[in-house]
Amino acid sequence: MSQDSFLQKKNQILSQIETTLGNVPDISPKGSIDELCVPIMNLINSHNDMVTTSSCSGRVSVFLEGVKVKDEGSSSKIGGKGDGGHWLFVEHDKTKIQDWHKDKFQYGQVPTTSDLSTRYILFKFEPLILHVKCRNYETASALYTTAMGCGFRESGIGINNIVAIRISIKLDIPIGYYNQENDTPIAFVTEEYLQMITQLSLDRFEENERRLNMLYEAISKMQVQAPKDSEQQETKEQRRERKRKEGLAKQQQKQAQIEQIEATEQKTTE
Amino acid sequence: MSQDSFLQKKNQILSQIETTLGNVPDISPKGSIDELCVPIMNLINSHNDMVTTSSCSGRVSVFLEGVKVKDEGSSSKIGGKGDGGHWLFVEHDKTKIQDWHKDKFQYGQVPTTSDLSTRYILFKFEPLILHVKCRNYETASALYTTAMGCGFRESGIGINNIVAIRISIKLDIPIGYYNQENDTPIAFVTEEYLQMITQLSLDRFEENERRLNMLYEAISKMQVQAPKDSEQQETKEQRRERKRKEGLAKQQQKQAQIEQIEATEQKTTE
Repeated sequence: MSQDSFLQKKNQILSQIETTLGNVPDISPKGSIDELCVPIMNLINSHNDMVTTSSCSGRVSVFLEGVKVKDEGSSSKIGGKGDGGHWLFVEHDKTKIQDWHKDKFQYGQVPTTSDLSTRYILFKFEPLILHVKCRNYETASALYTTAMGCGFRESGIGINNIVAIRISIKLDIPIGYYNQENDTPIAFVTEEYLQMITQLSLDRFEENERRLNMLYEAISKMQVQAPKDSEQQETKEQRRERKRKEGLAKQQQKQAQIEQIEATEQKTTE
Repeated sequence: MSQDSFLQKKNQILSQIETTLGNVPDISPKGSIDELCVPIMNLINSHNDMVTTSSCSGRVSVFLEGVKVKDEGSSSKIGGKGDGGHWLFVEHDKTKIQDWHKDKFQYGQVPTTSDLSTRYILFKFEPLILHVKCRNYETASALYTTAMGCGFRESGIGINNIVAIRISIKLDIPIGYYNQENDTPIAFVTEEYLQMITQLSLDRFEENERRLNMLYEAISKMQVQAPKDSEQQETKEQRRERKRKEGLAKQQQKQAQIEQIEATEQKTTE
């Protein structure tokens, strides 16, 4: 992507973000950018070669599955929306999750005949996710390495140098089902259980925020290796500076590689 | 990475895999490669420019957290091992999970005072994960696009052209805690609940296998764009063939891009 087309795309995205931050709703139902993401978005967007394309600072959600159809040919509905599936609760602000379950359920038992027609209610904690479009592979690679170093172990570079920054602190819990007969959501866990997983989500929100702050610090110090095709135009001083930065980047990469291997080993040996 | 060093690394990995398949245990506690992964590993390794570096076909695990210490400076223990944390159960074979919970727990209530000293017991379903080292970016990019197209939406390219193939059908459920006083694991969900999440895991195992088969088919038809530095040496015929493949790859990329955008929108608008 040439400088001009990247800049053009970036400016387009930035003007959308500005509109949203000025309280004009964006396309999401929430209608705004998560407050916690604003500082890191500003930091990333102040960098010449990066622009944020989507963000979610983390959230708690409660989802009622739709009607599932067993069809080998179609894409699966496991944990998916299904027909008529919808959210009973979505909240990105940790200060507003304490009493989400009040008066939402009747309490009961796991249904005795559970099959595909059972519409489960799922409680989820989902952590930060950030997508960042980079001008070139060198920048994408530096950002990926930086994110991995901060514990965002499920990060990856996609096509067109878009980096997805992901971490794996999740909760994914069936808490009830929908009773079709009397049109009522039934919780098959106790109210104390719902309070406990709400507290566990708060802990995860805090951990998530701690990682976000680490990532902010690391990105503010990030060094990017010069793209290969820029080498011919550089002066002696530029070359010296580039070599220094490359040395640093290599060190960071090596560290991230070690951590990646460790993380992989943990998964395969667990 | 030059052809020789890639091949050297690949041969080294292949000989390790062969040893493991010949019933000499590998370094994981399980001591072997998951049977379900063998066909796709063979397919990937038959390709000149790819080699599998780690794999897990999916599993159910039950983990007892260790003793957690609140320390702002250290890395977090949320959902992590903690001191003395260990698995109560790990199984990769879906035919062996039915009665995992029998005689493992006393059944009780959520503890009234739950804090950092509470050692939770977590039930997890984790899907397929595959790491594939590619000779060049073009191969990594084609594999990434192929995996995304098969629903492995959390895939990504890391450094050194290692592609992580990941999907997000998980379960992550607190099911009990450890009672220190009488040295007993207590389930704070019912036995029926444990049976139900075991059944949900079986459904996920099947979905996981369906995706794995899709991925196998897609990789067997995968087209790789020729690396840029090979263009000068090609003949007219080679160039024509390359252009044709590039066209196909672009189509695939476009499709994956659309799907990636849709998936991102789903996340940000959910």
